[in-house]
Amino acid sequence: MNGQTRLSWTDVRDKMRARILDRTYAPGDKLPRDEDIAAELGCARATVHRAMQELSQVGLVERKRKGGTQVRANPVTRATFDIPITRLEVEARGAKYDYQLISREIDATPPPIMARFGLRHAVTMLHVKALHLADNRPYIFEDRWVDTTSNPEILAVDLTAQSANEWLVRNKPYSRVDVRFYAVNAEGESAEHLATNPGSALLVIERTTWNGPDPITTVQSAAAPGYQLTAQN
Amino acid sequence: MNGQTRLSWTDVRDKMRARILDRTYAPGDKLPRDEDIAAELGCARATVHRAMQELSQVGLVERKRKGGTQVRANPVTRATFDIPITRLEVEARGAKYDYQLISREIDATPPPIMARFGLRHAVTMLHVKALHLADNRPYIFEDRWVDTTSNPEILAVDLTAQSANEWLVRNKPYSRVDVRFYAVNAEGESAEHLATNPGSALLVIERTTWNGPDPITTVQSAAAPGYQLTAQN
Repeated sequence: MNGQTRLSWTDVRDKMRARILDRTYAPGDKLPRDEDIAAELGCARATVHRAMQELSQVGLVERKRKGGTQVRANPVTRATFDIPITRLEVEARGAKYDYQLISREIDATPPPIMARFGLRHAVTMLHVKALHLADNRPYIFEDRWVDTTSNPEILAVDLTAQSANEWLVRNKPYSRVDVRFYAVNAEGESAEHLATNPGSALLVIERTTWNGPDPITTVQSAAAPGYQLTAQN
Repeated sequence: MNGQTRLSWTDVRDKMRARILDRTYAPGDKLPRDEDIAAELGCARATVHRAMQELSQVGLVERKRKGGTQVRANPVTRATFDIPITRLEVEARGAKYDYQLISREIDATPPPIMARFGLRHAVTMLHVKALHLADNRPYIFEDRWVDTTSNPEILAVDLTAQSANEWLVRNKPYSRVDVRFYAVNAEGESAEHLATNPGSALLVIERTTWNGPDPITTVQSAAAPGYQLTAQN
């Protein structure tokens, strides 16, 4: 803790990254233990820990149990996306948020929905379609199924006033999620509600959540043309 | 460390998550410090630390400096994607990998490429187009620019034998990356090389990397129809 030369965690991160870039530590090499790096650099072990977390976060090193660290033999680009409540995402962009309930039905789950949850038999669920708008323009069209056996409270929620997205995120934290990104061509309903031409390429964010073994919800969110998901490291 | 009842980090994670789900700790609440949770549950502080990392990783809590933890007032869905070297991604799927260099030119950067790097003036860079194949079928078509001022070694690499993707990942770790996912309609070259109809919706992964202030590479990877990026938490 020699105040004058004490390094910040970003200093330690940059120093260790430079050593990986110049091959002092080559792909596959084990790095010294956090405490040994701390002793060498004259900083706190927690500072090294924070720096290593960052290098792990970007995919350059792998942290092992028991505090070991290894330079990744095959580095990956690690991209972390935080997908917020859609209303908050729109508002964070400085846009006015609006929401329209398109349909709300109790339906038997078709095979693709059963497959997402890993269900072997059809069950009845709440099927909701809704449109999120930013500055009066279509932003995301969502097609959602909610398991009403494990989430009966959703049946009492006024979905014309509040989106199922926001209600579920606030009230039904999940223990497991499956997230998929893919592209589809707009067609029929999605083209109509997103006010785009049939055939337009749409980015789809598909999320399926469970609480323990119980399904909560599965949603296909098709974003209006031009939408990008971005991450910086 | 009372061996008999000692909890694993997954036990601690599940216990703390259950308390968040049942609102013992409500959105926005601060959780006790790791050491206090450890004392209460009779486990090691490192066990609590690991459990909290996981709950933070899924977007349920936020870790603060100095070891504090807060239940997220607005939970997010956190999805982390590790994008490997394309050859390794194909091989991990159990498919045979092939690669074709389509073109290799020295060109002046057009405005969209300057914008990705934040350059105010055009410079000459290496412009490479290539196709990655899985089991003889088009998998990813990449359109890449490489800065040859900061990465002159790439000019000596035989890009008919080794993809720029693999060479760069192995030899040019970055200090900063910008990742974007979006959808485009296949057209001209991308449709031709991906052997799909013009207009097909394609998922694009765009990556731009720097080493300090110096550009390394920017690449638009358009995946063949049906490609999904997936993450589970």
